[in-house]
Amino acid sequence: MPTDAPPPAARIPDSSTADVRARLAAAFGDRAAFDGPALEAVREDRSGWRSDAPPAALVLAASVEEVQELMRIASATGTPVVPRGAGTGLAGGGISSRGSIVLDLSRMDRILEIDDVDELAVVEPGVLNGDLDRAARERGLWYAPDPASRAISSIGGNIATNAGGLLCAKYGVTRESVLGLAVVLADGSLLRTGHRTVKGVTGYDLTALLTGSEGTLGVIVEATLRLRPVVHGAIETVAAAFPDVESAGVAVGGVAAARVRPAILELIDPVGLARVAEHLGTDALAGTPLADFAPGETFLLAQCDAGDAAAEADVIARVFAEAGGRVERSTDAATGERLLDIRRAMHPALASRGNVLIEDVAVPRSKLPEMFREIARIGAHYGVEIPTLAHAGDGNLHPNFVFEGDEVPEHIWAAADELFRAAVRLGGTLTGEHGVGVLKRRWLAEELGDASVDLQRRIKAVFDPAGILNPGVMFPPGDGADR
Amino acid sequence: MPTDAPPPAARIPDSSTADVRARLAAAFGDRAAFDGPALEAVREDRSGWRSDAPPAALVLAASVEEVQELMRIASATGTPVVPRGAGTGLAGGGISSRGSIVLDLSRMDRILEIDDVDELAVVEPGVLNGDLDRAARERGLWYAPDPASRAISSIGGNIATNAGGLLCAKYGVTRESVLGLAVVLADGSLLRTGHRTVKGVTGYDLTALLTGSEGTLGVIVEATLRLRPVVHGAIETVAAAFPDVESAGVAVGGVAAARVRPAILELIDPVGLARVAEHLGTDALAGTPLADFAPGETFLLAQCDAGDAAAEADVIARVFAEAGGRVERSTDAATGERLLDIRRAMHPALASRGNVLIEDVAVPRSKLPEMFREIARIGAHYGVEIPTLAHAGDGNLHPNFVFEGDEVPEHIWAAADELFRAAVRLGGTLTGEHGVGVLKRRWLAEELGDASVDLQRRIKAVFDPAGILNPGVMFPPGDGADR
Repeated sequence: MPTDAPPPAARIPDSSTADVRARLAAAFGDRAAFDGPALEAVREDRSGWRSDAPPAALVLAASVEEVQELMRIASATGTPVVPRGAGTGLAGGGISSRGSIVLDLSRMDRILEIDDVDELAVVEPGVLNGDLDRAARERGLWYAPDPASRAISSIGGNIATNAGGLLCAKYGVTRESVLGLAVVLADGSLLRTGHRTVKGVTGYDLTALLTGSEGTLGVIVEATLRLRPVVHGAIETVAAAFPDVESAGVAVGGVAAARVRPAILELIDPVGLARVAEHLGTDALAGTPLADFAPGETFLLAQCDAGDAAAEADVIARVFAEAGGRVERSTDAATGERLLDIRRAMHPALASRGNVLIEDVAVPRSKLPEMFREIARIGAHYGVEIPTLAHAGDGNLHPNFVFEGDEVPEHIWAAADELFRAAVRLGGTLTGEHGVGVLKRRWLAEELGDASVDLQRRIKAVFDPAGILNPGVMFPPGDGADR
Repeated sequence: MPTDAPPPAARIPDSSTADVRARLAAAFGDRAAFDGPALEAVREDRSGWRSDAPPAALVLAASVEEVQELMRIASATGTPVVPRGAGTGLAGGGISSRGSIVLDLSRMDRILEIDDVDELAVVEPGVLNGDLDRAARERGLWYAPDPASRAISSIGGNIATNAGGLLCAKYGVTRESVLGLAVVLADGSLLRTGHRTVKGVTGYDLTALLTGSEGTLGVIVEATLRLRPVVHGAIETVAAAFPDVESAGVAVGGVAAARVRPAILELIDPVGLARVAEHLGTDALAGTPLADFAPGETFLLAQCDAGDAAAEADVIARVFAEAGGRVERSTDAATGERLLDIRRAMHPALASRGNVLIEDVAVPRSKLPEMFREIARIGAHYGVEIPTLAHAGDGNLHPNFVFEGDEVPEHIWAAADELFRAAVRLGGTLTGEHGVGVLKRRWLAEELGDASVDLQRRIKAVFDPAGILNPGVMFPPGDGADR
């Protein structure tokens, strides 16, 4: 696992650490830990990043009042707090920093309410995305935001990162499903934002501001979430192998130009496809467009739902074929799942070969071909493979770097740096759905500009004047401290 | 027209006003006016509210650079600036205050770009919503946010108020269509937010924070907007007359419970319906479910689009009939428009009888029956008619007050006050889509609580430390000044 070097100075002196410990032990009993393997575990998330130190304490909060109490202790002692959900982050936004308290919210995992008529749920932050979706479906509803991690990631973390997923081009990102929040602020006070209504414009949209704020403005302790009526009818799947990434890019543009918006449109580039094919083996690909796949080919998978699904799939199949794709179309659910399994195999295929650094740039859809050329150029320049998966429907790409050993090698960081800059240059962003965390904070000003970063730091200071909420996440630390 | 009383003190001394005038005249020539009917005109919008004084100056800006220059002059002289679009606001958010500069952005009305593949438009703030939609439709795209004012309201104003409309329950409010903004800040600097992508989580969501900020944080000078592929197929219309508002409320709940989400679901209560029927006359209602309508009846109109339209309309027609409605169903576009014209006649019907104060509360859909009971109770208590229109699909109600003379009578303000409080008590909001403006600022803390208002004031101070951007809008003025 990679670590930051050199190790930074401790955030707070030992004497006050002793005071913090005493207060936490008194307030939380055995749900406050100060050493042991649990503290080691929160040095990591799923990004492959590892912080330089375990926290000073790990606290498992069980209620809103406990989170308030914790924040009062943290405020009184000036101790940094790192809110943490299921620990599935991909940018190091919820990992320990030296001298910090990691506030584990995973125990606050109750679905408090599902309202059938208002089509909403009220949940604690530790509820897993997939568990909420399952509970909603029992009522004929569903929860649309679908990060690939949905089986294991928590709603609180999804909101903190404004998580995306596969269905976003059609059904929106997490922000579109958050109607209201309850948030504990740095001083321990409780702020409620938003409504139980789709509309509501009284005051600033703090709900949206808090969504995606990565634990730097407040601790999400409750969320009111929009549910949707389940989508009826068969799901239509169209999959195709293209001779190269360029022709697949043409097909993506062609789908948009045909004014069709599939629910899912996923792309695996030739490098990624080779790794997936090796990983799955010949049998798994038999009967798919990848059965006779040749090196250099690109995979594109579309799924359409709701009443227009068949007509949309007709158009997509035609566009794919015209762009040179070997097309397979299916309305059979099992076949659709089997084709989707090819896409799902991407990360396991890479993880079986080493440590994986997953990047998360997004570019305007029309710039996908150019971005793929940039990826190829950067890969060649640095002599690294960059297997890439894309949510092509919304221009969100995950270029991956596989490496040996505990630290991301310097030449991979250099390649990633060029890649981020290319995405920003093409009108895109360095993170489409994973967040800035500690991994990408060094590029924040590169994308936003110094004036915007300064403005955002001042917004943070309104919520958190002492800077105790997740310091070092999103914004580069000003004091030389690091994780 | 109503006015605030007593007249407040001027914001700035006359000597500095002379300085401001000289600077504006030098910078803007004959596009800066200091007296005349144009200055009188900007004392009003469409809310029925009239400010206590014309502005010190009215400036027609023609470019981003000019807006920057204006803000530099305003900052240097401490002069309040009121950004104004098409002047169609319904909360007094863009009307003059004494000593202010009204910054008219209606001349900045160019559609700068429509991108077919990225499905987005880049526009200046003065572009009318309807004009953008028309231009998009020429490319097979459309702009979803559809405030009833769309033919006459500007995109800048729509964004400043996070405008809603009829289609929001299915297609989202304005915020869901704003991908990025260019905003001139109080000091004249230009801030760009967001991306040309649907996804993007680098830093705080300033785009969402600025959307709905009513000109209090910055001046919107450019917007990057999401377009959608046009919806194909026939629109299905289901209209019904119900014996009372309770049974119509049951029907609205029934539609949700049946897991159907129509594109439009509009309700006119018995008082409103009587006024509409009088206004339209018997002929216009012949052949509709209102042909034999009896006093006390309620009108409900649903429209469904896209591939599921026919199946959804089947369900809605059944739910309406089961709830006691006299149902008419149509796939004929002309009939659909004729039925929608009944709903569109509501405002003209009221305006023909006097001045109209349009309220804009929203409640959770399940609370609609209770809110209608509250409206009836409040109307009876104060002896006023409260004809009410509702976007029933999203729980957004427009209770209307018709009055004679230039000022809103005290008993109508008292009734409106009770009505706002009832909506907030039911888990709703005092404004669903019109904004707070000057009309509703006195209830801001009632809904949000003092701590949230204080936090929001501090966010405003980050953007606008001297408080020159639309002072008195959203937040009650601290200095006794009023409009």
